[in-house]
Amino acid sequence: MNAPSLHPDVGALAGLLGTWRGQGAGEYPTIESFTYDEEVTFGHAGKPFLAYRQATVNRATKLPAHAEGGYWRGVGGDRIELVLAHPTGVVELATGTVEPTPTGLRIEFVSTATVGTVTAKDVRALIRHFELDGDVLRYRLEMAAVGQPLTHHLAAELHRA
Amino acid sequence: MNAPSLHPDVGALAGLLGTWRGQGAGEYPTIESFTYDEEVTFGHAGKPFLAYRQATVNRATKLPAHAEGGYWRGVGGDRIELVLAHPTGVVELATGTVEPTPTGLRIEFVSTATVGTVTAKDVRALIRHFELDGDVLRYRLEMAAVGQPLTHHLAAELHRA
Repeated sequence: MNAPSLHPDVGALAGLLGTWRGQGAGEYPTIESFTYDEEVTFGHAGKPFLAYRQATVNRATKLPAHAEGGYWRGVGGDRIELVLAHPTGVVELATGTVEPTPTGLRIEFVSTATVGTVTAKDVRALIRHFELDGDVLRYRLEMAAVGQPLTHHLAAELHRA
Repeated sequence: MNAPSLHPDVGALAGLLGTWRGQGAGEYPTIESFTYDEEVTFGHAGKPFLAYRQATVNRATKLPAHAEGGYWRGVGGDRIELVLAHPTGVVELATGTVEPTPTGLRIEFVSTATVGTVTAKDVRALIRHFELDGDVLRYRLEMAAVGQPLTHHLAAELHRA
């Protein structure tokens, strides 16, 4: 099968397609700070969403750390939605916007729902900021979880692989 | 990095690891019936979950149809959990059991929550039955959605690739 054309509803996200690798740092009031190597991929199948996968390896232990996977949906104009599963037993839905900048994109997602399985930790809200700047993708994540208010948790800088 | 050993909490699911391909049929009171080609993969990173991805192609149109991705979590004994994102804007959490059979496994998931983005169709409940029988993996899915009660929706038979 030939590669399908990118669906126009996710046309604004074209700059994200491909694989990104880099490093990040995590902190939270309830845990030790840590650093990680990360790989992120964005793919598409010609439909109005991008498939998104992420995995990190803890730089100290060299062991797999977080992972997450799901979809970025184009829903008209500059509006996008995120649906994501975390292997920690949490799912995340978010609404967001994508905004062009002189060198790339600025994207922000605010969670509309986070739900956990009965054994999952309590995650209440997530805010994700992405900045695409040429071949560099930076993000920051704020999280309200385990009794803490929205607090800075992760920041990373990735480069196009 | 060497391939990690399978985490004991998902040891009962070892028979699922790898790639599966086959065909299925879908029906629902609100749509035309359809048939599809499907590929499913189960992977792991040495942690207490399997990464699960699925994609189908409509056999009539040859176009990508459904996809879904997430994690199967081992949470002790015969109990498992499913956290899944659908590009339709729906996330699914389910609790389940895995039971050995003379030739494989019997697995059942019942959703504990289904949540959609504001633009998603209304999906209320999903029941997934899997039967691993040697190198054959069959599943059936019942769905309550768009005003319909729990109703048979999908059945497929996949073979180890």
